[in-house]
Amino acid sequence: MALIVGELINTSRKAIKPAVENKDAEFIKDLAQKQVDAGANYVDVNCGTMVFNEPEMMAWLVETIQEKVSAPLCIDSPNPKALEVGLSLAKNGQPMVNSITAEKERYSTILPMVLKYKTKIVALCMDDSGMPETAEDRLKIATKLVGDLTAAGVSEGDIYLDPLVKPVSTGDKAGLEVLETIYQIKQKYPNVHGICGLSNISYGLPNRKILNQVFMIQTMTMGMDAYILDPLDKTMMGFVYASTALLGQDQFCMNYLTVHRNGLYE
Amino acid sequence: MALIVGELINTSRKAIKPAVENKDAEFIKDLAQKQVDAGANYVDVNCGTMVFNEPEMMAWLVETIQEKVSAPLCIDSPNPKALEVGLSLAKNGQPMVNSITAEKERYSTILPMVLKYKTKIVALCMDDSGMPETAEDRLKIATKLVGDLTAAGVSEGDIYLDPLVKPVSTGDKAGLEVLETIYQIKQKYPNVHGICGLSNISYGLPNRKILNQVFMIQTMTMGMDAYILDPLDKTMMGFVYASTALLGQDQFCMNYLTVHRNGLYE
Repeated sequence: MALIVGELINTSRKAIKPAVENKDAEFIKDLAQKQVDAGANYVDVNCGTMVFNEPEMMAWLVETIQEKVSAPLCIDSPNPKALEVGLSLAKNGQPMVNSITAEKERYSTILPMVLKYKTKIVALCMDDSGMPETAEDRLKIATKLVGDLTAAGVSEGDIYLDPLVKPVSTGDKAGLEVLETIYQIKQKYPNVHGICGLSNISYGLPNRKILNQVFMIQTMTMGMDAYILDPLDKTMMGFVYASTALLGQDQFCMNYLTVHRNGLYE
Repeated sequence: MALIVGELINTSRKAIKPAVENKDAEFIKDLAQKQVDAGANYVDVNCGTMVFNEPEMMAWLVETIQEKVSAPLCIDSPNPKALEVGLSLAKNGQPMVNSITAEKERYSTILPMVLKYKTKIVALCMDDSGMPETAEDRLKIATKLVGDLTAAGVSEGDIYLDPLVKPVSTGDKAGLEVLETIYQIKQKYPNVHGICGLSNISYGLPNRKILNQVFMIQTMTMGMDAYILDPLDKTMMGFVYASTALLGQDQFCMNYLTVHRNGLYE
């Protein structure tokens, strides 16, 4: 079964920003609990839009969420101070950091926290030369990231490579390059995980939901095994459970049947 | 873009049987036209339940459908007499035969018609030892079928291998073995096509529609490029167009956008 990171607690979402600004603890706790109930293994925490007090808000969010749920958190920020505060307070099992890259400065700033808090780490296939185009470009960066991280003491099983998904509206092969990347990564590093969000792929096209759903299924077929998504989207979660069963990863389809009985997908 | 064989004209379907028994020509013509309008490249014709007069009914169906549509037909029967009659009347471009197998008697009976009418041929991965279990079993039969058919003069591009889909409810790896088969076939024979129906995979499980949809997307990701399905199912067709675009087979997503504007999926 893929690892699901619930993406809803993110202040760039319209419904979330006021709740965080007003420190509406019940709203946040409820949203965390709903995501876990719906199948999220990790709860993402992102308050990157709070530019003037991101570390303070991160601290409040982490403590508030942990009052209610026991699932581990994914501390999601480009701001090292917010990451450090979030990780120092994260008590629910092994936290995840979103994200490190192969950019020199970012890598050297984030790595010490990954080691200090023994986190899982989302590693974006991106370096100082910018966003990759081809699967080959991505694989080069992935190879460097896996090599450097494991040399530093991170285990392969704690690495979640994000191949960087670009909209298919900007290039016909944008999806295909990612699918090839995942396949190659899984061949080269069977213990390393693949993760991605799903909304970039459909940017600029109509009927984005079905493109996002299809891309989840396609990437899982190629070996991706973690997604940052909205677990309250019952259609998407149905596709996650169905994909898992059809890939032979659900003995006797037990999980598919159980979540069906519990009304967790449609 | 995958080749779509519209499956609706089949007397095993409740709505169709009485229309064929009563020779309701308008109903049949309309159903053929609707499937073509919805994106079917071939119209399947199957009256296998008419055990006492299948060849006669096949003749009537083929002639009736051709009065209305110009798409080629897929003559679908295990009965050599019905196949021969259907093929002798099929005038809309290159017909398809569904199906040949590696069973000795069936192979030797069907092959002459494939050659005589220069048809496309659906070749089921099945021989006299029965239904295959593993991808390896399927590949052995596929190799024999492709070798024998091409030696007899059938071009690789006219062969549509059907890996034989069994319900995942009868074995956890049923889907995975098919996915592996397709991948291996495409590696070995890039010019040979893969085809399948989609309902077997979900037999015995709840919410069959989503399993069928997921399996279409998974198999297309691995290289399958033809499906026998209901083209009036707008959700399924939406997934076909979306999958094609995300696999880099739809320049500028033009087909996805056009069929969206024309309301051909939802």
